[in-house]
Amino acid sequence: MSIDETVDPAQAVCPVPRAEDERVLLGHGSGGQLSASLIREVIVPELGRATPPGPLEDAALLPIGGVELVISTDSFVVNPLFFPGGDIGTLAVHGTINDVAMRGGAPAALALAFIIEEGLPLDDLRRVARSVGQAASAAGVPVVTGDSKVVNRGAADGIFITTTGIGRRMPGAALSAAAPRPGDVIMLSGPIGSHGVTVLSAREGLGFDGDVTSDSQALHRLVRAMVDAAGPAIHTLRDPTRGGLASALNEIAQAAEVGVVIDDGLIPVSPAVAAACEMLGLDPLHVANEGCLVAFVAPDAADDVLVAMRARPEGAAAVRIGEVVAEHPGRVTARTLVGARRIVDMLVGEQLPRIC
Amino acid sequence: MSIDETVDPAQAVCPVPRAEDERVLLGHGSGGQLSASLIREVIVPELGRATPPGPLEDAALLPIGGVELVISTDSFVVNPLFFPGGDIGTLAVHGTINDVAMRGGAPAALALAFIIEEGLPLDDLRRVARSVGQAASAAGVPVVTGDSKVVNRGAADGIFITTTGIGRRMPGAALSAAAPRPGDVIMLSGPIGSHGVTVLSAREGLGFDGDVTSDSQALHRLVRAMVDAAGPAIHTLRDPTRGGLASALNEIAQAAEVGVVIDDGLIPVSPAVAAACEMLGLDPLHVANEGCLVAFVAPDAADDVLVAMRARPEGAAAVRIGEVVAEHPGRVTARTLVGARRIVDMLVGEQLPRIC
Repeated sequence: MSIDETVDPAQAVCPVPRAEDERVLLGHGSGGQLSASLIREVIVPELGRATPPGPLEDAALLPIGGVELVISTDSFVVNPLFFPGGDIGTLAVHGTINDVAMRGGAPAALALAFIIEEGLPLDDLRRVARSVGQAASAAGVPVVTGDSKVVNRGAADGIFITTTGIGRRMPGAALSAAAPRPGDVIMLSGPIGSHGVTVLSAREGLGFDGDVTSDSQALHRLVRAMVDAAGPAIHTLRDPTRGGLASALNEIAQAAEVGVVIDDGLIPVSPAVAAACEMLGLDPLHVANEGCLVAFVAPDAADDVLVAMRARPEGAAAVRIGEVVAEHPGRVTARTLVGARRIVDMLVGEQLPRIC
Repeated sequence: MSIDETVDPAQAVCPVPRAEDERVLLGHGSGGQLSASLIREVIVPELGRATPPGPLEDAALLPIGGVELVISTDSFVVNPLFFPGGDIGTLAVHGTINDVAMRGGAPAALALAFIIEEGLPLDDLRRVARSVGQAASAAGVPVVTGDSKVVNRGAADGIFITTTGIGRRMPGAALSAAAPRPGDVIMLSGPIGSHGVTVLSAREGLGFDGDVTSDSQALHRLVRAMVDAAGPAIHTLRDPTRGGLASALNEIAQAAEVGVVIDDGLIPVSPAVAAACEMLGLDPLHVANEGCLVAFVAPDAADDVLVAMRARPEGAAAVRIGEVVAEHPGRVTARTLVGARRIVDMLVGEQLPRIC
């Protein structure tokens, strides 16, 4: 989650307390409502005039010399460093490439900053750097500059990576969280929940990680195929990372001031992820993903976009999951399997810390 | 220090060990020879094909759509968070603006990523964010996007900030660490050592911090004035941060394959910093700075550049400190006060951890 959270103040049930002895909570990093409060009520106001007016998004558009750049930055603090399907290095590359792509940017370069804890085995550092190199090379996005700092034992946890991505807006892409309109079709590129369940299982030794694998992958080529197919008819793209699909949909519903309706029965969740979530008491809608995207598309273009998505391996399992409505602006509801309706809230507090 | 370190392998006296149980040392973050080894021998080789060929510098030049961008990223892990003359927030803004400027970039935007330890007082976070905002606003460089993560108690130390700066190459700027030629005049924009001494004193409670203040400041306007005055006659700019002036000069001597000669008697050091270094057994040449730069300038343009520097408050105390020679390529020597010569080495191992 970025400082771009847009939350209706009337809906924020967890305001950041004001007293002098108040402290940052783990839940402030959840990607849910507490995160939004921290960013909206503490960080952005203090940044003051240094922050340009208007809503901020997952990535910023920055025109320089007639070129429309797309910039995004993210810190990765996942624990454990290595998990089935990836590690902190692949995550740092895929996550930032995806944030640039979700804003319609074709990623052109990455900048990487390592914060390393004294005592980290050099072999772990090598393995992480190799993962970064392989993921960047596979994505065709070079690492052009970087930094490394070492802090004393106990002042960090192994290694943290902050990745910044710079891209150029793809011609035809006009994506914004505020763009969805009633009637838009909502599509999901693939099954949800596997990244969060995999990391949790690897961290806690739950044993699910034999059955589930993180979905971590770069989505910029999928986005390119979608933009080529439908251009500005694609209103919004978002990768539902921290806070899961539920938080991503709520953010968009609030930014666009529209209602979102999804069908529980249409949300793809693998049997292994569903079983793990059932045992752990997790809602798959709140579990982090690192390799899928949700798209809001004008109805006329929906079929073309779905065909374009399914033609790419990253989008082979793409499905429609719902639509945008004029009713209940700012709210997300789900049609349940028995035909009832329920409200889908943003994640409140902390569910899975250090998932990315 | 960035992944741009260029060190003659023949001179590396502290190679990174190879055994499987080898670990990252605090000295790997010093900005000196161990840092260079870590980057050169561990990180860059593993990044492999993801890293473009050729030497990397403090900031990368990135041409996109006919615009020459300058990109730099740095993590800030200074301890303590607050010290006389600044805090981690001002440092995160100034340090990155300066890295962009040293490559000839006019900084246009910043991206900020916070890693926050659970339990950090919200007032500290507010104060840091306010410092970021004020420093960015004073420098005229907006914060266009950001990220925040929270990690559990003990997994970080208060707050770390990673700042990425994006700029556009100033017309007339053609700066590179490899550009200096014999005969070039070496200039320093102001006194050295105050940042490192201030942070060390504040951390250890040494009591010097009543007398010394960090020199943390943005240098992009000084660079602009210098480039306006002399354009490509300015061959190299470097802000001597971690590892101090000695490490910066050694890096340049090695990258350009030239000799560097400085005069001990010409290096400006305030009496308070000199006294503190004397007591602590530190060489001011190895102490970090955050508000001065060293310039390598073609001899014909040296006077014009010095006039331009002294016309700016950041360069009011600018002086010549030495020159480039053809002899002893890759080496830095100093003429001592008694007329002898000594070798000025890069910092070896760790002197002042977590200084920026």
